[in-house]
Amino acid sequence: MPETLTLYTAKLCPYAQRVEIALAETKLPFTRYEIDLGNKPDWFTPKVNAAGKIPAVAYGGPIVPPESPSPESQKIAESLVLLEFIADISGGALLPKDPVLRARVRLFIDVVSNKITPAVIGFAFQGKPVDDLWTAIEAIQPLILGKYAVGDEFTIADAALIPFIARGKIVLKYDIGKFEVGVGLKAYEILQTDPRFEKFRRYIADVEARDSFKNTFDEEYLKEWYTTRFARN
Amino acid sequence: MPETLTLYTAKLCPYAQRVEIALAETKLPFTRYEIDLGNKPDWFTPKVNAAGKIPAVAYGGPIVPPESPSPESQKIAESLVLLEFIADISGGALLPKDPVLRARVRLFIDVVSNKITPAVIGFAFQGKPVDDLWTAIEAIQPLILGKYAVGDEFTIADAALIPFIARGKIVLKYDIGKFEVGVGLKAYEILQTDPRFEKFRRYIADVEARDSFKNTFDEEYLKEWYTTRFARN
Ligand SMILES: [Ca+2]
Repeated sequence: MPETLTLYTAKLCPYAQRVEIALAETKLPFTRYEIDLGNKPDWFTPKVNAAGKIPAVAYGGPIVPPESPSPESQKIAESLVLLEFIADISGGALLPKDPVLRARVRLFIDVVSNKITPAVIGFAFQGKPVDDLWTAIEAIQPLILGKYAVGDEFTIADAALIPFIARGKIVLKYDIGKFEVGVGLKAYEILQTDPRFEKFRRYIADVEARDSFKNTFDEEYLKEWYTTRFARN
Repeated sequence: MPETLTLYTAKLCPYAQRVEIALAETKLPFTRYEIDLGNKPDWFTPKVNAAGKIPAVAYGGPIVPPESPSPESQKIAESLVLLEFIADISGGALLPKDPVLRARVRLFIDVVSNKITPAVIGFAFQGKPVDDLWTAIEAIQPLILGKYAVGDEFTIADAALIPFIARGKIVLKYDIGKFEVGVGLKAYEILQTDPRFEKFRRYIADVEARDSFKNTFDEEYLKEWYTTRFARN
């Protein structure tokens, strides 16, 4: 029997969705526990993650309610560490066997961390130009080697990227973010139609079509939340 | 027979030394090619790494001179990607089998990337306070679980950290860096004697005692280079 696994997560958080997608792909049993980021339970930081952040996992130890994490379980945090961990416990899912392709997965994730993530967060929340996103997409597009990031099998590279693109699309489509009215919508049009992003769009559509994405993504919830956060008076 | 492997590297570079250490630990055969960072060969960027950076690896393909990389070999860059790659091709070295310990290795590396590296580069080259280094060491010290980062076996966590600490020690010990005269030496004294860093010092000494470190580290060369760079008039 596999060890018990509890995931502390939040629908809002793209880092947490990475881990939810990976777990969904493996079909490993786990307990999902939603953390209210605006009102974190008192026990979370002392008992699960001293940094106070989600996603975090409690792995192994006795079966306990998520609200009473056992000191005997292993606590693991950081979304990219958790993606590798889930691949490790899955018995062969989410990472190719070939060492060169495994390196391609990790290089893809490096571009996600260093280009895609800052570009999406930049235009959505920090008033940076949407052009940074086009540059980031042009950096990652040539790295897409097949139906998914490194070929025909879904890997942690895909799980690492999609939560940020999916959130970026909501911000643009509903024109809700730290930018002037209309800027998001115009950028959404470019993202969805510009021929230079054709390969990227096809790739994103294939990832979004998977149950692991659909079942861990709540567009209405996110739209509501962004709308509240960026209400223009 | 293992695939051919050529490492493009430079003695100066801590990121490159990570990979040299990992390869030394595995005892895999490889060709070491020193790149003169001040005068990079014309063929390097087009044929090995479009980003122009070392460390970079050419893996597989026909046996060729390092100066004429084959289009048939796989080119892989980024030091942390290469550490995982070398663990993958080593057949079991450099990473524990236990998934929880593997996660501990990756969490340790995360703290190296986000705390140790910026602190060392900060005080050596950017005029930032040495205090940032004490904060970084206090963050990583509790993560040291044994003789090495995650236990009694040397892993990629150790290879990821040591090049930065070893270079930081030279900068402090010879008082050569972007700080006032005497500041480095005073900090070196603290690093080498303050009781709060006892566990860290013991750990560093154990890593520095390994052949994989000693044979890939040229203190005289680095001292010369830093002295030239930071000559005070
Ligand atoms: Ca990083």
